[in-house]
Amino acid sequence: MNRSPEPPPPPPPGGGGTPPMPGRIPQHQSGGGLKLVSMTLPVGTEGGGQMVDITPDLSRLLKSSGLHDGNVTIFVPGSTASVTTIEFEPGLKVDFPALMERIAPVDAEYKHDQTWHDGNGHSHVRASLVGPSLVVPFGGGRLLTGTWQQVVLVDWDNRARRRELILQFIGE
Amino acid sequence: MNRSPEPPPPPPPGGGGTPPMPGRIPQHQSGGGLKLVSMTLPVGTEGGGQMVDITPDLSRLLKSSGLHDGNVTIFVPGSTASVTTIEFEPGLKVDFPALMERIAPVDAEYKHDQTWHDGNGHSHVRASLVGPSLVVPFGGGRLLTGTWQQVVLVDWDNRARRRELILQFIGE
Amino acid sequence: MNRSPEPPPPPPPGGGGTPPMPGRIPQHQSGGGLKLVSMTLPVGTEGGGQMVDITPDLSRLLKSSGLHDGNVTIFVPGSTASVTTIEFEPGLKVDFPALMERIAPVDAEYKHDQTWHDGNGHSHVRASLVGPSLVVPFGGGRLLTGTWQQVVLVDWDNRARRRELILQFIGE
Repeated sequence: MNRSPEPPPPPPPGGGGTPPMPGRIPQHQSGGGLKLVSMTLPVGTEGGGQMVDITPDLSRLLKSSGLHDGNVTIFVPGSTASVTTIEFEPGLKVDFPALMERIAPVDAEYKHDQTWHDGNGHSHVRASLVGPSLVVPFGGGRLLTGTWQQVVLVDWDNRARRRELILQFIGE
Repeated sequence: MNRSPEPPPPPPPGGGGTPPMPGRIPQHQSGGGLKLVSMTLPVGTEGGGQMVDITPDLSRLLKSSGLHDGNVTIFVPGSTASVTTIEFEPGLKVDFPALMERIAPVDAEYKHDQTWHDGNGHSHVRASLVGPSLVVPFGGGRLLTGTWQQVVLVDWDNRARRRELILQFIGE
Repeated sequence: MNRSPEPPPPPPPGGGGTPPMPGRIPQHQSGGGLKLVSMTLPVGTEGGGQMVDITPDLSRLLKSSGLHDGNVTIFVPGSTASVTTIEFEPGLKVDFPALMERIAPVDAEYKHDQTWHDGNGHSHVRASLVGPSLVVPFGGGRLLTGTWQQVVLVDWDNRARRRELILQFIGE
C-alpha cells in the first residue's frame, strides 16, 4: 500500500535512463572514533514461513546502545531462516510465503530430503534465496526505515524454532 | 555478457568442492579511526520495475566523502523498491523485471490488494525478495565493483515515485 | 536438515504477531577505535551454478586480520555470481541451482542473449536476484554463523571463471 506521508511524486522522468538528481550535501560527518555494540536477540517462531516483526526490538536496542548515527547488521545464524523488510500487515504475511511456495514448493523434490528425510529442503533453498543478513542505517537515534517498512525475521523451517539473532550496531 | 578485460580463466578445478586458492596478504590495514559519512540521494523513478543506475552518483559522492578505503551501505526506505547490482544494458533492463513477472505476476491474487485495493501487492513481495539494502566496498577512492556491474535502484511500485536513498560511507 | 545442537525449541507462541523476547544485555561494547582490514580472495569456479564453500578461508583470514569482534563484508565483483549462505551438503548443491533453473531457466528467452549472443542471460538475472554482497558478524575471533550454515560463492555464469572476492573486516 502507498500510505506515504510524503508529497506526491514528481512527473516521471522521460526515458528509462534518466540520471538521478544530485545528492544532497553530507548530512553527517563523524569526527572519527566509531564504536561497535554487539547484542543477541532471541526470537521464538512457529516456522512455516512465519514472519516476526523485530522493528520494535531494534529500536529499543538501538536506544540502549547509546549510538545515534550509523548502521545495524542483523544476521540470523542457521540455514532455514531469512531477514528482510516488508510492510508488516496481515495480507503480506500471507502473500510473501505464498510467493515462495510458488517457486520453491514444500512438496517439490529435493535431494536434501532424500538424504536427510526431514522434509525441509524447501526451507533451505528459500533461506538461501532471501538471505540471512540485512544492514539498516540509523540517524538521530532512530532507524531510517520507511513508515510502512518493518524489519522481519522469516522462519522457513517446518517446525517451531528458537532463533538467536546477532545484532551489531556500528556508529557513534 | 562476458566482456571482462581480465585474462581468460584457468582450467576448471576438478571436483565441485575444490577449495579456493589462499587469500592474498592483506592489501590494506587501517591505523584505527574509521569515519562515518551519511548522505541521502534523491532518485525519481517511473515505477513498474524501472531500474536506475546510481553508480555514477555513488562514485561522485564517494569522492565528496573524502574517504578512500571502506564500504558504502545503500538503503532504500519504503517497501516497494530494491537495491542490487546488474550489468546495466537495455536487454537486462527488460529481462530482470520479466523474471520477477514470471514469479510474482502483477495480476496474481494478493491478499494485500484485497484489503488495500491499490494493486501493488506484487511490488511488495518483489521488494522483500530482492531486498532493500546493499553493501559495496571501495578502495583507493573508487568503488570495487566489476567493470560490467552497476548498482541499481529497482522500483517495483505501480506508479512514479520519488525515492530518497540513504548512503552511509564507513572508512578512512 | 535440523541437526542443531541447541535445546529443543519452546512451544510455539500463540499468534502470528507474538513479539520476540527482549534482547539480552549488550555482549560487547567497544572503547572506540575500530579498524578496517581489506583483502581479496581468489576463487576458481566451474560456473553453471557451482557453489564454493568459502567459510574455511573466511575463518583463516579473520584470524590473520587480528580482529576479534566486528563483521566482514563479502562482495563479488562481476554480474554473474552471488554470495549467500547455505548448509553446504551434496543435496542442496543440486537443489538451490534447481530452484533457480525453475524460475530463470537457461533456455528461456532473454533480450540480453539476443543482443550479445553469449547465452548467459539467465546468469545475470539469477545473480541480481540473489545478490553480490553479504555481511557476516564475528565475535571472540570466530564467525557467528550457525553450525550447519556455510558462506558460499555461487557462480551462475555458463563457463569457468576466476573470481576475486573482496573481503572487508571491520572491528577491533
